Amino acid sequence: MKVNDCPLCKSDGGKLVFRNPQLRIIQADEPGFPAFYRVVWNRHVAEWSDLLPAERETCMNVVVTVERILRSELQPCKINLASLGNAVPHLHWHVVARFEWDSHYPASVWGAPKRASAADKLALVASRCLNVNRLIAIKTAP
Amino acid sequence: MKVNDCPLCKSDGGKLVFRNPQLRIIQADEPGFPAFYRVVWNRHVAEWSDLLPAERETCMNVVVTVERILRSELQPCKINLASLGNAVPHLHWHVVARFEWDSHYPASVWGAPKRASAADKLALVASRCLNVNRLIAIKTAP
Repeated sequence: MKVNDCPLCKSDGGKLVFRNPQLRIIQADEPGFPAFYRVVWNRHVAEWSDLLPAERETCMNVVVTVERILRSELQPCKINLASLGNAVPHLHWHVVARFEWDSHYPASVWGAPKRASAADKLALVASRCLNVNRLIAIKTAP
Repeated sequence: MKVNDCPLCKSDGGKLVFRNPQLRIIQADEPGFPAFYRVVWNRHVAEWSDLLPAERETCMNVVVTVERILRSELQPCKINLASLGNAVPHLHWHVVARFEWDSHYPASVWGAPKRASAADKLALVASRCLNVNRLIAIKTAP
């Protein structure tokens, strides 16, 4: 099941917030983006359509749970969702809370920065993410 | 229901491939990416979690249908899915077939290009997209 040299088969891929046999939720280590989460399918598959319908439903329900918690706790101006996997073709959903003041807004987080984020704003989001992590663990558990 | 100055309330947003009362599928006009599709929710909502569960299921089933057709017809090295909406906060899913030779691979399509795509390869994908469009219309219709 595990694929040699796949970073998401080898390790959690970030700070583990929740894990069950099918998937895990990590808080990514992305400088400038404290509210950058990933829902990682534990089994190594590359594409969204590789999952069974029931697996996609399970996974997407978790993505929506994370999105809802980010919206209620952080009031971002936008949520960004993406399953790209060009660099790491192991299915994972990026769930990112975006703010007008963040380094890349309104561009995607994968382009060049437009500005530096204010340290106080980043620190406030980071501190609120402690509660986001707590709520993710509570609300995702069966 | 329609929002003033929302480009996706005002127009289809690209070449219309399929439309029903809930959603539409367009082939985007993105130079260098002939196989760049969008599933646009017709009603103006900003976030994925603004949809009802049944609406999300409907929408995601269509995203998966488009992904499957792109995979079978074009054999891309990766599919990229994303709902960002920072510039246009009207719910739409990007469904993009990626190739090792495309201008941005392995980076996201929203960053800076790494190279020019070969014209013959682009032309071949564009010609195959005629069949993709035909299949999308057939397989998405009830």
